Amino acid sequence: MLLKDLRTEVLEANLELVKRGLVLYTFGNASGVDREQGLVVIKPSGVDYDDLRPEHMVVTDLNGKIVDGDLKPSSDLDTHTLLYREFAEIGAVVHTHSEFATSFAQAGMEIPALGTTHADYFYGPVPVTAVLSDQAIGGAYVHETGVAIVKRFEGIDPMAIPAVLVAGHAPFAWGKDAHDAAHNAVVLEAVAKMAYKTLLLNPEADGVSQALLDRHYFRKHGAKATYGQ
Amino acid sequence: MLLKDLRTEVLEANLELVKRGLVLYTFGNASGVDREQGLVVIKPSGVDYDDLRPEHMVVTDLNGKIVDGDLKPSSDLDTHTLLYREFAEIGAVVHTHSEFATSFAQAGMEIPALGTTHADYFYGPVPVTAVLSDQAIGGAYVHETGVAIVKRFEGIDPMAIPAVLVAGHAPFAWGKDAHDAAHNAVVLEAVAKMAYKTLLLNPEADGVSQALLDRHYFRKHGAKATYGQ
Amino acid sequence: MLLKDLRTEVLEANLELVKRGLVLYTFGNASGVDREQGLVVIKPSGVDYDDLRPEHMVVTDLNGKIVDGDLKPSSDLDTHTLLYREFAEIGAVVHTHSEFATSFAQAGMEIPALGTTHADYFYGPVPVTAVLSDQAIGGAYVHETGVAIVKRFEGIDPMAIPAVLVAGHAPFAWGKDAHDAAHNAVVLEAVAKMAYKTLLLNPEADGVSQALLDRHYFRKHGAKATYGQ
Amino acid sequence: MLLKDLRTEVLEANLELVKRGLVLYTFGNASGVDREQGLVVIKPSGVDYDDLRPEHMVVTDLNGKIVDGDLKPSSDLDTHTLLYREFAEIGAVVHTHSEFATSFAQAGMEIPALGTTHADYFYGPVPVTAVLSDQAIGGAYVHETGVAIVKRFEGIDPMAIPAVLVAGHAPFAWGKDAHDAAHNAVVLEAVAKMAYKTLLLNPEADGVSQALLDRHYFRKHGAKATYGQ
Repeated sequence: MLLKDLRTEVLEANLELVKRGLVLYTFGNASGVDREQGLVVIKPSGVDYDDLRPEHMVVTDLNGKIVDGDLKPSSDLDTHTLLYREFAEIGAVVHTHSEFATSFAQAGMEIPALGTTHADYFYGPVPVTAVLSDQAIGGAYVHETGVAIVKRFEGIDPMAIPAVLVAGHAPFAWGKDAHDAAHNAVVLEAVAKMAYKTLLLNPEADGVSQALLDRHYFRKHGAKATYGQ
Repeated sequence: MLLKDLRTEVLEANLELVKRGLVLYTFGNASGVDREQGLVVIKPSGVDYDDLRPEHMVVTDLNGKIVDGDLKPSSDLDTHTLLYREFAEIGAVVHTHSEFATSFAQAGMEIPALGTTHADYFYGPVPVTAVLSDQAIGGAYVHETGVAIVKRFEGIDPMAIPAVLVAGHAPFAWGKDAHDAAHNAVVLEAVAKMAYKTLLLNPEADGVSQALLDRHYFRKHGAKATYGQ
Repeated sequence: MLLKDLRTEVLEANLELVKRGLVLYTFGNASGVDREQGLVVIKPSGVDYDDLRPEHMVVTDLNGKIVDGDLKPSSDLDTHTLLYREFAEIGAVVHTHSEFATSFAQAGMEIPALGTTHADYFYGPVPVTAVLSDQAIGGAYVHETGVAIVKRFEGIDPMAIPAVLVAGHAPFAWGKDAHDAAHNAVVLEAVAKMAYKTLLLNPEADGVSQALLDRHYFRKHGAKATYGQ
Repeated sequence: MLLKDLRTEVLEANLELVKRGLVLYTFGNASGVDREQGLVVIKPSGVDYDDLRPEHMVVTDLNGKIVDGDLKPSSDLDTHTLLYREFAEIGAVVHTHSEFATSFAQAGMEIPALGTTHADYFYGPVPVTAVLSDQAIGGAYVHETGVAIVKRFEGIDPMAIPAVLVAGHAPFAWGKDAHDAAHNAVVLEAVAKMAYKTLLLNPEADGVSQALLDRHYFRKHGAKATYGQ
């Protein structure tokens, strides 16, 4: 893929977040990675979405060193790059403060798999990280946010559960490309919204069985997927 | 009715679901049946709503065998066709993951008849199916979903309560034609939304009396209906 | 006022309800009264709002006898006319199934005066009627709905609290003219929405003091009103 | 700054509140101050937002004496002017009845700092004033509202926590200029919305640590701010 196309894809993913109501003002960012060239394309920090053009995207290497671009990258860059280094299969990362997913993150609660909408996208609960230590917060905080995510995913396949809640903060989602990562962030918010209402109606709601989780997840994912054209 | 008109009607019902906010991305489907010809017209699987045209609709027989169309039918086809075979009076079926109705389904709770808005459309609580067994889920799952619905409606007239919640999944609604089925799905969501808020305000809310249920339901349905022109 | 102007005003009030999201499909109606001529102008029953024109409005006398119009009047006509006969100062009546006010009605709960937004419009809690008896429901039900409202307002000035919740049903609002009645219905829904959230945050919320109720209500109403131009 | 520019800025801040859904009908107002000239520019009372033009803004001195303008100023003027006199660094004040912030005010609850969205803007909980005494309400009520705010901010830097909830009433927000004050009011509502959901999910939610509060707040504020371009 040409870097030019990746810039456009990353911009479109950022705009999809706005269109779907996941982003207020500049509270969100999306990035994509070109694995062959070892380059990351990310939204600049604090620029109005209305003014964003592909050429405004900032290009860095996988350690966050700026390679191209006149603007400062998103302040969450170091979380994105760590995820690219640690999760080998992901092609894009999205961060939002979307209302319901963030409320679960603030409550320190994972999003349980309460229905088939969840199971179609997330093969188990969407986990919440541990609370960051004062030392981590006072140090390389943005990097440490990534460390907490990676630690929480020990034993979890990030392609099977393509999102996480950072405790006291907000969600990150990812996917095979920028379109897919934004799509997962949008579905995460929908799933969080329904989990919220379900838990208020019935705090003891059982959640889906393993059989139903398997059936729905593998309907849309893996070699035997049957959904779509 | 010409099959051409049924294709258009089914498409319009699908678009009504989008317009009313019941469908995110491709999470929903509507179908209609031509009883004389024994043909079902259904949305194709996983196609963007923006791109849908009448000629994209898939035509099958009442057992789900494809008769016409280049695209794969909705993955929920086997539930639709079973409902057509078992519920002789229905002319269309709609499936969504609409937010509030799905939250009741996830909570494993029926939607009680708490007010006259409900009574105008549903002659009693909107029931929730039993949880599907692992065997049913592992077998002909989509067909088994229909089986669970039909079993739950033993003793209930599907024309008097034109919707159901599939436990841990989401609602199905139906009606005499595609327009009516989509309308019922939209009203179901509105009724679910108000039931949710009512129960949070007052978990002991009484619900309507049989007299009020009768009065409102028969105001809009049956030989003595007085509503409308 | 010419009846022609009243038809237009009543139509505009109906459309304001749609614009503000208080009405789904045809679930609502507004009427206005010409006291000099003893005529009521009301929306026809079950007609799409998109198609409504001033000449579609139905004209009746104060007992609901149709004087002009080819369409059937709103099925709630007899409640409207009773309110006009009993509440001498009101010039218009609005009925909706707006989401939050209806949820309070379904919960059988009045809307307490929890803040100054409420106090600016309603000089005390918005009351809920008694549940209608089976006999009333089985008899002249729409008229009996009005009877229950009037009975609930014994000792309450309907101009000081221009709305009511009919238990298990939905709100009615009124005002000095059609614009005012629709405005009150919209504010009622906003006030109900905030009361709902307040009570979920703090079921023991105190509500405004009599002093604050007086201050805000009389800021906008009565001889000493200071609000606006 | 020319007063002409301030009129335009204040108008734009008022319109931003409408655009973001914080204001129903005329329930809100924004003002700005020109410290050099000692002049305040404020929205007129009860005028439709659609009709507002820069020349409709009312100009007063810091004691609320009208200097220019044919319309009556917002009925909340005396709160605005007191805040300008007492909080030396603020350049604009905004008042709304936005849904979630008002619900906290009605519940008599501060908005706790439950996440980083909050910490990015408010360096601690958003406080709620004491309930006004009957005497204060019966006296110079609008002025006394300001007195209650100022009293509540004893020991709090108003630039570090640029908003307050007036008990039983609604929020006020402020900032270095009109754009900033409106922005803070919008973020306050978003933060209140997420705090509401967080507390309903988990009434024992911990809130952010001092370390996280420091990290996020100073990322966007003060000499060492790193956010944006």
